[in-house]
Amino acid sequence: MTFPGSQALRVTVGDVTRELPTVRVGAVGRVPLVEFLGDSEFTNAAAEAMLPLIPPGTEMLLTVVTNALPLAHELSDRSGLPYVVARKKRRTYMQDPLIQDVPSLTLGVAETLWLDGPHAARLKGKRVTIVQDVVASGGTAQALARLVTRAGGTVAGYLAAFKQGDSALPLIYLQELPQTI
Amino acid sequence: MTFPGSQALRVTVGDVTRELPTVRVGAVGRVPLVEFLGDSEFTNAAAEAMLPLIPPGTEMLLTVVTNALPLAHELSDRSGLPYVVARKKRRTYMQDPLIQDVPSLTLGVAETLWLDGPHAARLKGKRVTIVQDVVASGGTAQALARLVTRAGGTVAGYLAAFKQGDSALPLIYLQELPQTI
Repeated sequence: MTFPGSQALRVTVGDVTRELPTVRVGAVGRVPLVEFLGDSEFTNAAAEAMLPLIPPGTEMLLTVVTNALPLAHELSDRSGLPYVVARKKRRTYMQDPLIQDVPSLTLGVAETLWLDGPHAARLKGKRVTIVQDVVASGGTAQALARLVTRAGGTVAGYLAAFKQGDSALPLIYLQELPQTI
Repeated sequence: MTFPGSQALRVTVGDVTRELPTVRVGAVGRVPLVEFLGDSEFTNAAAEAMLPLIPPGTEMLLTVVTNALPLAHELSDRSGLPYVVARKKRRTYMQDPLIQDVPSLTLGVAETLWLDGPHAARLKGKRVTIVQDVVASGGTAQALARLVTRAGGTVAGYLAAFKQGDSALPLIYLQELPQTI
């Protein structure tokens, strides 16, 4: 998938091919960047490919802002499964939100997820699949799973378009991306 | 549209009806809340209704995170017009972003929009329609328009699902919502 001497990474999902841009991160090299925002064709191809991978018995999808939003929307639309969105900051309108820290080492900064009370209530008693665009360390996925449990639901599985790291999660994904090229 | 004695506001878009939740804001009353995140059916209905309202000659759509993302994705998908997303904070991977303050009085806090350089380049020479979920004061719309101009594009129009305030913008929208009920 890598092009020696190139600064892009070619990825094909369904019949859509993209040259992912890469960004230099410190001395470790260049990190390929997945962008679903602003690319409805790529988003749709990923959703279509992920559709058969949704764990059987799933009743609800849970995702988190921002990059996965169009993807989760499409997956919800195509599967007929409702979806719920956790936020990364408190919104003024939230009522009794569940607040969950993300156990992240890679970010260097503690992140917090916020799930508005009425949305948490939608997860109660449901089998919920966590949906993300890219899973790296898996810290965000774990925090989302914790939110499911705290809301009274059960985790049906973890589904992502791309895996890009050494997460120990039982992750279902379309393709693995190198962390650096 | 209002239900006296009720705390919800009923809105119908296409064949989808929702009781919008309302949140109490200070002493002014209850503000109806439009949530497209987590509601693909409502999002699709709004995109379908907005489709014929896209100004003729539009070559590109521009929106801003977060609530309008699934809507902009759907509108892009249905219209075949590409879309670009401005962010509300700097991302580490951005290259030569355009940085634009939002002239907002209502928020009480200055907000800043960030448009990544490669995405700004996509707007150059294009006729761009600004797409939002809800327009209140119009400050964010003005900042997005400024980004279009600075990127070398021209503003084809302003399109929103809902108008909820006294913006002087020449806004095209589906429905007007009361600011408070």
